[in-house]
Amino acid sequence: MKMEAYLSRNIKDALQKDPPGEWMFELPDACIRLNSGFPAPDLVPADKLKEAVTHLIDEEGDLPLHYVGSPRFAGLKDSIQQRLAERGIQDGEVLITSGACQGIDLIARVFIDDQTLVAVESPTYMEALEVFQNYTGQFMSIPVDEHGLQTDRFEEVLAKRKKDGLPMPRVLYTIPTFQNPTGTTMTIERRKHVLELAEKYDFLIIEDDAYGELYFREQSVPLKAIDHHERVLYVGSLSKVVAPGMRIGWVNAPAEVTTALAWFKKDLDHPFVQATMASFLEKNDMEKRLHMLRATYQEKRNAMTSALKENMPSSVSWHIPEGGYFVWVEVKGADTSKLLPYAMDEGVAYVPGQYFFLNQADGKAFLRLSFSYASRDEIVDGVRKLGKAMRKFDL
Amino acid sequence: MKMEAYLSRNIKDALQKDPPGEWMFELPDACIRLNSGFPAPDLVPADKLKEAVTHLIDEEGDLPLHYVGSPRFAGLKDSIQQRLAERGIQDGEVLITSGACQGIDLIARVFIDDQTLVAVESPTYMEALEVFQNYTGQFMSIPVDEHGLQTDRFEEVLAKRKKDGLPMPRVLYTIPTFQNPTGTTMTIERRKHVLELAEKYDFLIIEDDAYGELYFREQSVPLKAIDHHERVLYVGSLSKVVAPGMRIGWVNAPAEVTTALAWFKKDLDHPFVQATMASFLEKNDMEKRLHMLRATYQEKRNAMTSALKENMPSSVSWHIPEGGYFVWVEVKGADTSKLLPYAMDEGVAYVPGQYFFLNQADGKAFLRLSFSYASRDEIVDGVRKLGKAMRKFDL
Repeated sequence: MKMEAYLSRNIKDALQKDPPGEWMFELPDACIRLNSGFPAPDLVPADKLKEAVTHLIDEEGDLPLHYVGSPRFAGLKDSIQQRLAERGIQDGEVLITSGACQGIDLIARVFIDDQTLVAVESPTYMEALEVFQNYTGQFMSIPVDEHGLQTDRFEEVLAKRKKDGLPMPRVLYTIPTFQNPTGTTMTIERRKHVLELAEKYDFLIIEDDAYGELYFREQSVPLKAIDHHERVLYVGSLSKVVAPGMRIGWVNAPAEVTTALAWFKKDLDHPFVQATMASFLEKNDMEKRLHMLRATYQEKRNAMTSALKENMPSSVSWHIPEGGYFVWVEVKGADTSKLLPYAMDEGVAYVPGQYFFLNQADGKAFLRLSFSYASRDEIVDGVRKLGKAMRKFDL
Repeated sequence: MKMEAYLSRNIKDALQKDPPGEWMFELPDACIRLNSGFPAPDLVPADKLKEAVTHLIDEEGDLPLHYVGSPRFAGLKDSIQQRLAERGIQDGEVLITSGACQGIDLIARVFIDDQTLVAVESPTYMEALEVFQNYTGQFMSIPVDEHGLQTDRFEEVLAKRKKDGLPMPRVLYTIPTFQNPTGTTMTIERRKHVLELAEKYDFLIIEDDAYGELYFREQSVPLKAIDHHERVLYVGSLSKVVAPGMRIGWVNAPAEVTTALAWFKKDLDHPFVQATMASFLEKNDMEKRLHMLRATYQEKRNAMTSALKENMPSSVSWHIPEGGYFVWVEVKGADTSKLLPYAMDEGVAYVPGQYFFLNQADGKAFLRLSFSYASRDEIVDGVRKLGKAMRKFDL
């Protein structure tokens, strides 16, 4: 078969780029997984989900196993709306998706073509970059600092492009809260500023709030909650607070948008997992669960930042995240992709910074550590091993 | 928000057509569902799936609840390959999808753009039409008779188009076995013929085999099993033989194709349901289960065709399907969408033929009955009620 001869024009360019998922790599069992963006094994409520299934089938029989028909499947939307209300979001329609990723993909499907200029944070979530690169090759990067997206820099660039008659971005993708990979959070001033920019320069904002509920001190205000011009398409997920393998996410957006997204959602609905999740949420107090998760991840964050302080050479720096899963580490003068095999020899893994940048060279001196998956002791041991690898490299 | 101003050029046309799912309608509880393409409630193994979850979580704990990591999740592909071997298919790679629908959508994504002419059977599965219409407006219809797709007619049209310098189809979508909606099966001669046509006129074939395992007398040979030129992209599913709500389907195709499809599969994998299905297949004998399903559906088919013989006016005709879920009924001189409210008043529902045709007027005199969902007694009673409605209409 000569596949090339039959390909859709719309995807030919996408297939020219590097294959997706290159940033996932196999690890020996003994290696401490500071690379992993998974929730900790003991924080995944496996037994409660098992009970949720038992409860569901005992009560509903075959209903959640058809295309439609389960009352709980239909009711999941209400539980999601309740979660959104806790984030201060009252307006908009909810479309349930297979994780936040499908939500981002559907939004890209409806709003991005090969002439769409997409603005992204630099660095940003690599899976989202891969999604957008399936639709367009036109990107602009806006740097992130310890206070999130640098909206002043963004405004400068926008004003200059406008003046020069250059194409303007139609979509901004941002993770304003506990960003992946930097762990930083956009200040309220910048949030207001970026919403003003969206209105002034006429672009949509995809707000990815996957980590928003995992705050250690105070809750941030989602862009969506202060968006008075329907500029924000909000994406959320239960992957970080219940279990990623259930694949439950959502988009909150104006009704005409969720209707259009649903039009292109051809995996259909997933009644069994959605009804199971509804059954789980019915039987388990999410506020209590979130309280426990926040305390546990905060403790792990503390363990990681203390260990960094003790073990990192002086050329290394990081921000202390106020929630989420990640610490972003700068290793001045290093090439973190070359350091990785040495770290793995010591028994610890991280994600090299390059994968989070459109221009991979920009990420050379960075690495992402996750305090979500490894245990407290593993975190301390893993950071120590990382320090050892760095010293071998004379960093 | 003015959504129109931000839409991708690639989807603007799709949003102009009728919204998807128009053929689904709400029914009062008492109505006998001869419209429903669901498996019968008592044939959905709800308790066995519950046990499969219990077994899975007891053995694997949190593993199937992450993005990757469950050994059973990884092993599901082997079980699918075993199912394919039972259908005579040895070659090609398997990509697991969320039901056959996602498989069809991913194939369309990779191979169909707005300049692609797609050949479809007339009538055909409406959900597939909806998928293709998201990508192109260029279609040609090839009629189906009691021996399946009329390949002679197809060849005539192809030869004429070639001679006239008209655009040629790049993709044919067919359900050769127990077709939805007609229940008919393509003869082996026509199967060979259509494969020859694909090679001669250079098009790909999407073979939808959702019903292939539900034969009453003898198994048919899938196109994929006799495809010597990698023309066939095969789509299968466990929706009809286990449970649709689990959303487990697959594409079997050359490796370069499954790799490209996976590239655009941005709902990611579904570890929990996939591992649950692997656990179910491990503990349950599928051959035994299929044997039971074939016997049960054959009995229900018999009940339906006997009841039709007894209750239909002489203007009504149908084929007797040798497997699958459906009987396709022609009601000469009727408009089955106008008849439907009368049938529902009597307490029975069907799907009007119009939804299965690109040109809906072609389906006016047809209706689809399903013997899958209703019980034997309901089928007999439902067909009697349908006859009553027809007599009110003087048919």
